[in-house]
Amino acid sequence: MTDYCYVNGALVSAAEASLPIADRSYLYGDGLFETMLVRAGVACLLNEHLTRISHSAATFGYAVPCSTLLAEAVNAVVSANALDTGALRLTISPRASEGLLASQSSPVNISVTARRGEPYAAVQYERGLIAVIARSTRRNEHSPLCKHKTTNFMDNVLAKKEARSRGADEAILLNTAGNIAEGAVSNLFLVSEGVVLTPRLADGALPGIMRAEVLRICGLIGCEVREVALTPDHLFSADAAFVTNALMRVMPLCRVDDHVLLNFNLKQLFP
Amino acid sequence: MTDYCYVNGALVSAAEASLPIADRSYLYGDGLFETMLVRAGVACLLNEHLTRISHSAATFGYAVPCSTLLAEAVNAVVSANALDTGALRLTISPRASEGLLASQSSPVNISVTARRGEPYAAVQYERGLIAVIARSTRRNEHSPLCKHKTTNFMDNVLAKKEARSRGADEAILLNTAGNIAEGAVSNLFLVSEGVVLTPRLADGALPGIMRAEVLRICGLIGCEVREVALTPDHLFSADAAFVTNALMRVMPLCRVDDHVLLNFNLKQLFP
Repeated sequence: MTDYCYVNGALVSAAEASLPIADRSYLYGDGLFETMLVRAGVACLLNEHLTRISHSAATFGYAVPCSTLLAEAVNAVVSANALDTGALRLTISPRASEGLLASQSSPVNISVTARRGEPYAAVQYERGLIAVIARSTRRNEHSPLCKHKTTNFMDNVLAKKEARSRGADEAILLNTAGNIAEGAVSNLFLVSEGVVLTPRLADGALPGIMRAEVLRICGLIGCEVREVALTPDHLFSADAAFVTNALMRVMPLCRVDDHVLLNFNLKQLFP
Repeated sequence: MTDYCYVNGALVSAAEASLPIADRSYLYGDGLFETMLVRAGVACLLNEHLTRISHSAATFGYAVPCSTLLAEAVNAVVSANALDTGALRLTISPRASEGLLASQSSPVNISVTARRGEPYAAVQYERGLIAVIARSTRRNEHSPLCKHKTTNFMDNVLAKKEARSRGADEAILLNTAGNIAEGAVSNLFLVSEGVVLTPRLADGALPGIMRAEVLRICGLIGCEVREVALTPDHLFSADAAFVTNALMRVMPLCRVDDHVLLNFNLKQLFP
């Protein structure tokens, strides 16, 4: 972490930052988060991230802090750390009251932490990532949590851990029906016969900020893109594949399980 | 909460208790918890709870604190609050290091909080609980998290919230195949033609401490009990049904959706 982070209205030393123990993210995974890229001292796609987290907060009945306050917290952390290039995490979660259900009027805890430096090395974009189809767990497309970036993130952590133990960089999660949902920390895209394909939200894909950006850019440049049901066989036989998230933006996959993929020149597709 | 709680080696004022922000339960739902009943100043089934949490901690690769230390923390909270009757919550979670994967050597945060008084009123046992089959979410029996009491608890919270909004006390979660898994905060048992039935762990039931106690007691008193695949129809047509957890112990259900169940005399079955 960088030197300073933000907790509930104050910039504090990251080493000493603490949180009230009666926090529902700590107790139940009842929290939301956003991870943002910082370039040239600016939090990229800040409005898009704040729109998503505010929408999810409203859905779950949090006493939603206004976006201006959240933006100020984010920018305060960038400034305090003189952060040029790095990553930010914004987390919001209701304070706990007695019992399992949060009170509608529970105030929320808000924190922003930062890391310094390029999240992914240039060489990783050149080589591409190695992915595996996760065997250890599945994405639950029947849960409304799929549509939100919540701190119930352990299935994704387990999948990522599995990827590491199998010598890979990323794990691709299937849903309970066997369709591809997403990567452990990314959304997935295939390129097949000149068409860009990505799993449907109904199959359990998180509505990622970069996913939306790719869909939007494909539209702008006249590249056909479809949200469809995809199986591992679609991925294995794709001409190319890439994953997206706010930190890596667009990252090619070079291999999935034992299937080598063309290291598609993504810069040509997304100049 | 009571006046005092335990955090990382110290008894502290509950109102001021805080947690390092770099906590993986707060960040990712990467934590474990136990809820325990206190009667006559004693944490009931303490060894069973500590055995479960220690087993899960080892599975997830936490630097497991020894059970003696955990028992001391629990007993210190009971003593400090002069707690005769109430409930305790023990939470353990690794401290975060850089990146999504915890280091094997990450120290863990340990907290114990308490509430005073009988968790459930006597009248609730007389009347029985009203349950609904949850429509809002499903239990993911494909995830290894099902086998552990983790702080990834939001699907259960959503189901409980749904129960409340539908005028019920408890929600019964189905798994993704449509079989009954468990209650939002309980395990479920049916009584049908003199046989006690409960969902299999493979269907997504949490291996509850009271669930294990009921299975054990049924064995002791020669009552036939089976872990089987159960559907809502089995529940609707049962002679009786009850739910269990560490705080309510054994609680009859009087109604599920529109189906009235006999208010089975559980005291006769479990004297």
